[in-house]
Amino acid sequence: MNTTDPQQRKNVLVVTAHPDPGSLTASLTGFAVEHLRASGHEVRVSDLYAMKWKAVVDADDFPDHTPGRRLDVMGASERATLSGRLTPDVVAEQEKVLWSDAVVLQFPLWWFSMPAVLKGWFDRVFSAGFAYGPAVPPPYGDGAALAGRRALVSVTAGAREGAFSDRGIHGALPHVLHPVQHGLFWFTGMAPLEPFAVYGANELPEEDFARARQAYAARLDGLFTEEPVAFRSLSGGEYDRGMRLLPGTETPGTTGLDLHVRGVRG
Amino acid sequence: MNTTDPQQRKNVLVVTAHPDPGSLTASLTGFAVEHLRASGHEVRVSDLYAMKWKAVVDADDFPDHTPGRRLDVMGASERATLSGRLTPDVVAEQEKVLWSDAVVLQFPLWWFSMPAVLKGWFDRVFSAGFAYGPAVPPPYGDGAALAGRRALVSVTAGAREGAFSDRGIHGALPHVLHPVQHGLFWFTGMAPLEPFAVYGANELPEEDFARARQAYAARLDGLFTEEPVAFRSLSGGEYDRGMRLLPGTETPGTTGLDLHVRGVRG
Repeated sequence: MNTTDPQQRKNVLVVTAHPDPGSLTASLTGFAVEHLRASGHEVRVSDLYAMKWKAVVDADDFPDHTPGRRLDVMGASERATLSGRLTPDVVAEQEKVLWSDAVVLQFPLWWFSMPAVLKGWFDRVFSAGFAYGPAVPPPYGDGAALAGRRALVSVTAGAREGAFSDRGIHGALPHVLHPVQHGLFWFTGMAPLEPFAVYGANELPEEDFARARQAYAARLDGLFTEEPVAFRSLSGGEYDRGMRLLPGTETPGTTGLDLHVRGVRG
Repeated sequence: MNTTDPQQRKNVLVVTAHPDPGSLTASLTGFAVEHLRASGHEVRVSDLYAMKWKAVVDADDFPDHTPGRRLDVMGASERATLSGRLTPDVVAEQEKVLWSDAVVLQFPLWWFSMPAVLKGWFDRVFSAGFAYGPAVPPPYGDGAALAGRRALVSVTAGAREGAFSDRGIHGALPHVLHPVQHGLFWFTGMAPLEPFAVYGANELPEEDFARARQAYAARLDGLFTEEPVAFRSLSGGEYDRGMRLLPGTETPGTTGLDLHVRGVRG
């Protein structure tokens, strides 16, 4: 399993959020870290519960903010970022993101989205001037602020796999995760892979967990070789100045969120 | 504007999250509260920043949890809910939800989703045994745990309206908000209306703000009369036992998340 080619040695940041160190999420995180290291990669972990990560953006995030004055979050965030006056916890996470060649998120799907503490990691770490805003390159694609990185979302879900499909009542997982895949990763230039999921996670028999680890290992092995989701770039000539997809660009019959993926989703 | 018919007097819970009391979000919240009261409704407000709402689910949420033992969040949440042992802050919010005939969310769209503190309100308040899980009726529809209530999401977004459409690069707002509209509200039985949005919110000229208030007032006036989004009920005979939409149920040509809405989205 050891990769000896130094070209293939990459930096991976694993960000995870679950309150129980004995949870399936924690097991999968541990498995991913070991597997990636055994493959020769450098791995750093942000375990948000263990770090007691501050989830909520507020005035304390901007030491230069005058108490009692208006708090324009985007403006304050950008000023603090550009002047190097963000709080040390945020700076440390930004350094990890910049160090990384890939980010892996491991979290339980709570209400079809991230646990609050992980959303708060993005709210605080992906500051204006770092991940978005007028001071960085335009969003959506290879030229955006955090381009050059890959992203893999790995979730656990209580529901069965069939219920997470186009016809399944929850919707297809890539659509449910659109705000993360497209709105967070692709927006900031990171190339997201198709998400990985372990379903039926509330009561997972040991043999299913073994199968899940095997499937996860295969995805982790492809972290730097798999084809990312073919989201369209804002600068790729497919959108007009109002950021609307040009007529006739899509494969006929494609609608909704799939309009923003090249070709037809599999 | 005063409604005298007591039949039309309803209870509305407004939940809002923005760190700046002078923000557009705060203005719209204030406007909504005044407008609803002037229309004769009872209004209660959960201003999560003002309340210093605890955003993160952890063992402290479950006073009966034995420190050091496994924390099965769903199990602990259900046991605490059913035995009346949730923390007082969560119980107070659950009482507001049960009291309400409609819930209005007012928040800035951060990374195409809620601020972390609002996600944490749902993570903690919508506990197992209260909003989901085996101890309450099945999800998705009129019979689910919180049925009989309406829900209106009102967001502010920096982007322009055209970029939030099917062909717009961000995607159509109802698709972007699918985890909230369908995954939170409809899942728990609440009937969501189409979301309301104020776009271009980073720099909103006064005349645009006046227009936004007028548009918001019209939506608030329709809170109890507007047709909710026609999401399909799990128990309505349109899904199989695997929660997959039965073949031939949809209008031909409908795909993706729209499969779960009756008819074709406008």
